[in-house]
Amino acid sequence: MIRNLIVGQSGGPTAVINASLAGVYETARSLGVTKIYGMRYGIEGLLKEQLVDLDAVLGSKANVELLMRTPSSFLGSCRFKLPHADANPELYHALFDLFEKYEIDAVLYIGGNDSMDTIAKLSAYGFAHGSPIRFIGVPKTIDNDLVLTDHTPGFGSAAKYIAATLKEIICDSSVYDLRSVTVVEIMGRHAGWLAGAACLAGDEDSCGPDLILLPEVPFEEEKFLQKVDELQKQKSNLIIAVSEGAQTADGTFLCDLTSSGGEVDAFGHKAMLSGTGRYLSDLIHTKLGCKSRAIELSTLQRCASHLASRTDITEAHAVGGAGVMAAVNGESGKMIALERVSTLPYQCVTRAVDVQQVANYEKQVPREWITPDGMNVTADFERYARPLIQAELPPVYVNGTPRHLHL
Amino acid sequence: MIRNLIVGQSGGPTAVINASLAGVYETARSLGVTKIYGMRYGIEGLLKEQLVDLDAVLGSKANVELLMRTPSSFLGSCRFKLPHADANPELYHALFDLFEKYEIDAVLYIGGNDSMDTIAKLSAYGFAHGSPIRFIGVPKTIDNDLVLTDHTPGFGSAAKYIAATLKEIICDSSVYDLRSVTVVEIMGRHAGWLAGAACLAGDEDSCGPDLILLPEVPFEEEKFLQKVDELQKQKSNLIIAVSEGAQTADGTFLCDLTSSGGEVDAFGHKAMLSGTGRYLSDLIHTKLGCKSRAIELSTLQRCASHLASRTDITEAHAVGGAGVMAAVNGESGKMIALERVSTLPYQCVTRAVDVQQVANYEKQVPREWITPDGMNVTADFERYARPLIQAELPPVYVNGTPRHLHL
Repeated sequence: MIRNLIVGQSGGPTAVINASLAGVYETARSLGVTKIYGMRYGIEGLLKEQLVDLDAVLGSKANVELLMRTPSSFLGSCRFKLPHADANPELYHALFDLFEKYEIDAVLYIGGNDSMDTIAKLSAYGFAHGSPIRFIGVPKTIDNDLVLTDHTPGFGSAAKYIAATLKEIICDSSVYDLRSVTVVEIMGRHAGWLAGAACLAGDEDSCGPDLILLPEVPFEEEKFLQKVDELQKQKSNLIIAVSEGAQTADGTFLCDLTSSGGEVDAFGHKAMLSGTGRYLSDLIHTKLGCKSRAIELSTLQRCASHLASRTDITEAHAVGGAGVMAAVNGESGKMIALERVSTLPYQCVTRAVDVQQVANYEKQVPREWITPDGMNVTADFERYARPLIQAELPPVYVNGTPRHLHL
Repeated sequence: MIRNLIVGQSGGPTAVINASLAGVYETARSLGVTKIYGMRYGIEGLLKEQLVDLDAVLGSKANVELLMRTPSSFLGSCRFKLPHADANPELYHALFDLFEKYEIDAVLYIGGNDSMDTIAKLSAYGFAHGSPIRFIGVPKTIDNDLVLTDHTPGFGSAAKYIAATLKEIICDSSVYDLRSVTVVEIMGRHAGWLAGAACLAGDEDSCGPDLILLPEVPFEEEKFLQKVDELQKQKSNLIIAVSEGAQTADGTFLCDLTSSGGEVDAFGHKAMLSGTGRYLSDLIHTKLGCKSRAIELSTLQRCASHLASRTDITEAHAVGGAGVMAAVNGESGKMIALERVSTLPYQCVTRAVDVQQVANYEKQVPREWITPDGMNVTADFERYARPLIQAELPPVYVNGTPRHLHL
């Protein structure tokens, strides 16, 4: 058995990172862990001893229900890259002193790649110094780019938001009897999972996007324009989903192409004239002469709890709970992965994998899940992603808006 | 009694314009109207005789349920400013010939200001030429800028979307222990109703926006920056809601200030360097040196049926139905307005008003509903708007996304 446990959240927000926190809390409470601490603002807050007693804030089941529906990190987050122990041994001493002071037996860290790196380093240091503390990583990232896991909690809800809002944008875009192109920019700087999820907008009642551009396939202007021109002969309102990470063969992001002229904005800064979506929209307008507009889904895609996937929430909760179980069972230096047991019917279980083999790797969309022309995803991609957006957890509406829980 | 009826949709999409169409259809069907036609793409489609028999597409109650949950204009829309009869008598002849051909006794047009202008002109022409056809306007606009009506269908749902997503953005923005400013740009070029609705994000669980900038009050840079600086001393993460129509005292839109330098984009166009939100974000970053970012809510605020207000849907349905009733009762040249009978408890009924007194007028947010410093709205604004975002109409989820109905 373990005495006290501490849990932190790190990296960018998602719609379900708090469901993982709920999973950690509820499992640890069921198992009779003495004190369950939350660290404010991840490792940074821990170093300042900004701890909260989770019983005090999550003791009521109704609060846990609200927590599951609250986007972003309840505990606060940080972007903190833990240095190597050799480079800054004092930092490690400080952290382990704090663990000792609060009689911590297990440290759970919910986050993406950098957070898994933190767990990898802390657990390696712990092993090397004979510490009994267990360090467990709980995955979270809308980008879905972690290896050794079928997918990451956060991806399914972002994918559901993208698919649902894209369907609404398609309704909006096709309202006039005119030729038009709508370019929708989607997050994902290095991997195209989220842009690919745009395919989920396609269904019996929606044509979905006509093209999907991913960072995995170099953008070729001529080929792209030719394709758009060709599609316009069949269909008056085109929808193009593009990853913010779309890039040319030499690795230049499309969003950097616009500012290449060195213009400055009204305040003398180098102008970020536009994002990737705006770039493509301008390109189409200039080269093909048709009406085009760009829509950036922006941070809404990662914080829209009101449209979260119940499947995602359930799995986020499960990886949190399994993390506690792994710690209780004496494991350390592990990340809780999701293993897909079957796709039809969809079944998925958790398993602990070596966090060293996760940290600092990146999973891109496999080339065989992208169409040969590089401008869409295949039916296999859809078969992979569709189960992850199933079902809903309706918000608790109070006074007309979804109710959240805050510290 | 009337024989046949035709209904059209015009202007920009909203989340509930199809609820008004459902109201027209269901009421006309209940009253035994012989044929209920829909015009594709408004008056433009009518002129091309693009008509649909609504019984064929809406005959099933289940389809009407989906229609109520489908954003944008089911029938398609147009932006068509009907000329004066003197300027183009042939056009009027063509339209009235079509009404005669299809034995139309009532024309209902669902739209905003331009659509009311169309109804005003057609009814005036009809009166002048002794036509028995009844012309009725059914209001629709997210902008809430029509006069003689307490509010417009479409506003409540857009306001609910703005309030709900702003709450989520606030969660997202406050995740790091750092000073930051998030500027959220909201639609509304000439009236600040939608930007004002940002106040609805404020509740027991959310601080709401710290500042709200409306087109009604001239933007003063110095005063604004001083206020931001002052607020930052009390609070690390600031949220500013700004109307896309925010402007300086001489009527220059903030979004035009950035392009004043005459820069051109990568394709040689005059650069639209940014929108209003980006302008303010850059201004804050440059002048106050803190981290800032801009989020544009974009078209999502007008087409997010999945977050529609049930109150709004019910009222949109009611104005459609009341429009049919007015026509049946022999009225013409009327718009169906919403009259608030009481705010506590909220009660609202329809009444027919003279469409000539609506067309081409514009209702702005009254100065007394804006705080004296011009950078927020008052409790009276909130009391006015809060009832309009109450209750929900949950989407019908199929395959993970909300199901819509299309022609």
